[in-house]
Amino acid sequence: MSDHRSTPEASPVPVPAHEPPYYAVVFTSRPTEDREGYGETAEQMEELVKEVPGYLGMDQATAPGGLSITVGYFRDLAAIEEWRSNQEHRAAQKRGRAQWYESYSLHIAKVERSHAFDRGTAAPPR
Amino acid sequence: MSDHRSTPEASPVPVPAHEPPYYAVVFTSRPTEDREGYGETAEQMEELVKEVPGYLGMDQATAPGGLSITVGYFRDLAAIEEWRSNQEHRAAQKRGRAQWYESYSLHIAKVERSHAFDRGTAAPPR
Repeated sequence: MSDHRSTPEASPVPVPAHEPPYYAVVFTSRPTEDREGYGETAEQMEELVKEVPGYLGMDQATAPGGLSITVGYFRDLAAIEEWRSNQEHRAAQKRGRAQWYESYSLHIAKVERSHAFDRGTAAPPR
Repeated sequence: MSDHRSTPEASPVPVPAHEPPYYAVVFTSRPTEDREGYGETAEQMEELVKEVPGYLGMDQATAPGGLSITVGYFRDLAAIEEWRSNQEHRAAQKRGRAQWYESYSLHIAKVERSHAFDRGTAAPPR
């Protein structure tokens, strides 16, 4: 598994396009002003999800004063279900609704096509 | 169509969960340092995509010094294909590869399940 996001300070690289089909879980949230405990829990979850068989990677971006988008990639629905029902993750979800999120949307989607570009490898345009 | 993102300064709200099936297009990029013309083009594209029948909305987050994630939602593949082949959009894509993106991944995914939470309406946890 890639550990390209293990240090938040490192220049991040998008999770690569895997061979379809696989799943994307898009979690888009508007945070509350209360960030107490959030960073610590987010780091714990980022480590914990790596233990889920079929986990492919995660991308995350938070705009200052704006939305936060996290996209997790999984091989299949069974992997998503395992992550969804993880007890520590469930506790974090509950705390998120109580404390950290003003609102959010969650979309579970089966990737049918994907494509990657890297300036260094000069992938041809499509 | 919602215009909740028409002013970048307004507190953004995630695109709501629509009734599945619909499609999510996840575009995750690592920008180059060259931002010349980028903001203007991004704004043009954001207006232009609204004209595509079946376009449902878009969420965007850019982490300072980090990744940029844009998720566009569409009713079906036909809507995505129309947007993909739009001439102005194609020109912007080409300029993006030449100038604005170090690397990116694009995932086209069919949403099978979705869920929304809003503190104000106290949606029940799942």
